[in-house]
Amino acid sequence: MERVGIGLLGYGTVGSGVGRLLQTDADEIRLATGKDVYLRKVLEKKPDRQALVPEGVTVTTDFDEIAGDPEIAVVVELIGGLEPARTFQLAALKAGKAVVTANKQLLSQHGAELLQAAEDSGTYLRFEASAVGAVPVIKVLRESLAAADVTGIMGIVNGTTNYILSAMAQTGAEYGPTLQKAQELGYAEADPTEDVTGKDAAAKMAILASIAFHSRVSLADVEHEGIEKISDADVAHGKLLGLVPKLLGIARLIDDRVNVRVYPCFIPVDHPLAGVSGAYNAVFLESDSFDKLMLFGPGAGGTPTASAVIGDIISIVNTAEGGFIRNCTCYKDHGMFPNGEMVSTFYLRLQVEDRPGVLAQIAAIFGEEGVSIQSMTQTGAAEHAELVLVFHPVREAAFFGALERVSALPVVRGTPSVIRLEGVETR
Amino acid sequence: MERVGIGLLGYGTVGSGVGRLLQTDADEIRLATGKDVYLRKVLEKKPDRQALVPEGVTVTTDFDEIAGDPEIAVVVELIGGLEPARTFQLAALKAGKAVVTANKQLLSQHGAELLQAAEDSGTYLRFEASAVGAVPVIKVLRESLAAADVTGIMGIVNGTTNYILSAMAQTGAEYGPTLQKAQELGYAEADPTEDVTGKDAAAKMAILASIAFHSRVSLADVEHEGIEKISDADVAHGKLLGLVPKLLGIARLIDDRVNVRVYPCFIPVDHPLAGVSGAYNAVFLESDSFDKLMLFGPGAGGTPTASAVIGDIISIVNTAEGGFIRNCTCYKDHGMFPNGEMVSTFYLRLQVEDRPGVLAQIAAIFGEEGVSIQSMTQTGAAEHAELVLVFHPVREAAFFGALERVSALPVVRGTPSVIRLEGVETR
Repeated sequence: MERVGIGLLGYGTVGSGVGRLLQTDADEIRLATGKDVYLRKVLEKKPDRQALVPEGVTVTTDFDEIAGDPEIAVVVELIGGLEPARTFQLAALKAGKAVVTANKQLLSQHGAELLQAAEDSGTYLRFEASAVGAVPVIKVLRESLAAADVTGIMGIVNGTTNYILSAMAQTGAEYGPTLQKAQELGYAEADPTEDVTGKDAAAKMAILASIAFHSRVSLADVEHEGIEKISDADVAHGKLLGLVPKLLGIARLIDDRVNVRVYPCFIPVDHPLAGVSGAYNAVFLESDSFDKLMLFGPGAGGTPTASAVIGDIISIVNTAEGGFIRNCTCYKDHGMFPNGEMVSTFYLRLQVEDRPGVLAQIAAIFGEEGVSIQSMTQTGAAEHAELVLVFHPVREAAFFGALERVSALPVVRGTPSVIRLEGVETR
Repeated sequence: MERVGIGLLGYGTVGSGVGRLLQTDADEIRLATGKDVYLRKVLEKKPDRQALVPEGVTVTTDFDEIAGDPEIAVVVELIGGLEPARTFQLAALKAGKAVVTANKQLLSQHGAELLQAAEDSGTYLRFEASAVGAVPVIKVLRESLAAADVTGIMGIVNGTTNYILSAMAQTGAEYGPTLQKAQELGYAEADPTEDVTGKDAAAKMAILASIAFHSRVSLADVEHEGIEKISDADVAHGKLLGLVPKLLGIARLIDDRVNVRVYPCFIPVDHPLAGVSGAYNAVFLESDSFDKLMLFGPGAGGTPTASAVIGDIISIVNTAEGGFIRNCTCYKDHGMFPNGEMVSTFYLRLQVEDRPGVLAQIAAIFGEEGVSIQSMTQTGAAEHAELVLVFHPVREAAFFGALERVSALPVVRGTPSVIRLEGVETR
């Protein structure tokens, strides 16, 4: 039986998971590929991790030993970060080896360069594990839905923020203490910045949008807003309106241009994404040909991610040279659709002085700017009066123009709370 | 550019959908395969359907014109039913052509024979559209999860019954009128037997279990129970317990043996499958390596099914000879796990005479048979007293043995209502 050697870069949580699955699932992989796929060499500098590498597998600290080994057909990069991961991937691809990676930072910033390198060498770059862990959304987008004209992606692609927002909705607690509890329970890292600012989600959405729309979207193209400013007051108001808070990545193809953003929003409590709670991830796809399709599962963790890596390895081993989806040349050059031209439905909470005529004054400004109010509720009184408004769908530039005027009114206090509504049309 | 001719058998709803997608999505298919995939010949006898075939495509009523055409590489069978579909598929495979089909009846009864024929000719048989329409569950099982050790499948794989049960749960109405309304709205066929008896779901589960467990499960192996006996009283009792009724297909791999069944059951209202309402389908996968994964989308309909067929065609065109998953020889010979040995959690509703000692008498029998009661509620009085019991997980043979003794008691009237609870451990 033909043998296929794997060179593995990094033997941390995911790397050792891949090493273990290559052993325990050797039979299944043989059944799936007709070939003997085996771990040949591991690049790892830390002695405690080196000790975990199975017997018979060469451990090295020199990347050239992997790049120069003709028995290694697939290099699995699980070091993470930009460098030396980028250099290693480029070198492996240049040496004609296929590359599998879970590195979303690298992919979302240098994806075009890496895919071009794979294309130039006639080999493959696969990165299912970089997006939604064990949920095979890239494969489904790239293969099953290759001709399905996907027009939209709505994704819960970050488990940490989903855990925090789920907990806030359930307990009514504030953001700060909820984050702290998530950290204690291991659902949020000590430095949660990448997660709570939406940057992690933005990187994943850049990758997903690139595949779904056959386009090139990099992290820099994705405006992202985090969950730090979501208050318990907003969560409570949303509940009264039948809405739950979620941090969504949203990618749309509009008039052959692409818009990709990450922001906290409200979705109806009966929307399929509303039921995705805790550390789970889900991706909701919209298309002219199938209406909607959702994939749901664990977003991260060593074993799910390792399982996605194995799926990519099998896919590569099963793919004959020159067959399958090209890495690169098939991509279209979509421009970006400007954020201000997007049409959205907004929720707005304003703190106002409770004086006669305040409501009329605010309503008048929105009216002048062509921003139509769907509902308006006033709660509290005197110094602590709050207005909650929900608008009809509106061009974002128009809404924010009107909001600027409203915010400047002397009767309006503090910073307005703005949250978009999504998925309302599927109710 | 290399050209790949398609021979299409049957130009009804799905067939004409495939014909249309091959035209409108020609660019995407070219990008995905690097080849020019085109509709070459259509086998169709009905003149009104023949009229729908695009210009330049040969229409024939003679299958040999397709089987004998060397320019046709892929035959798409969308006639449905057992014959002549089986003969056509076997002949096409024997001629070395790949076959794509949506024919669940044929696959679930003659799948082994057809896969063997594909194997013998070194070609491919693909049938994504036979299971869950546009939801690419077969592809995900076969490729992404090939090494993931899937241990369980829970699926809502029939839209008609899901629509009826969703409506019953929402309105509190009885089965009969709800079915009638579903028929009026087009969600149920004039003869709904295949759907409401669970037979349609059983065929799909046989296909899914075969792929997931690398096994051979045919329709005859799948015990199925329909939704005809679900009463509004059960739905109401379930609601009080926080449960919703669903017709589930359940496949499990236990001690290297397979058990596949279809039955109505209760699931917790916060289970991800509980949110799948109306005519939607969903498949929930369990595995040691990723915990749980759900795929959700439209189960049927011309365009979703046609889209799944196109996905299979792309997959075949992209697959080099000899590569990829084999059709046949990689399958293990799993035996079936007997139903009576399965461990389940039961809900039971009994109509009893409201006499002192009745409860004790019933509880005693279950106790003697080692069947442990989790909760017991009595409603009504005198002639119309009802007992609702929920049991701890129990070997099914033991439960049904005890139930037989209980049913024979003079104080028990009518037929007991037995519904399994599923997904309770994921609460």
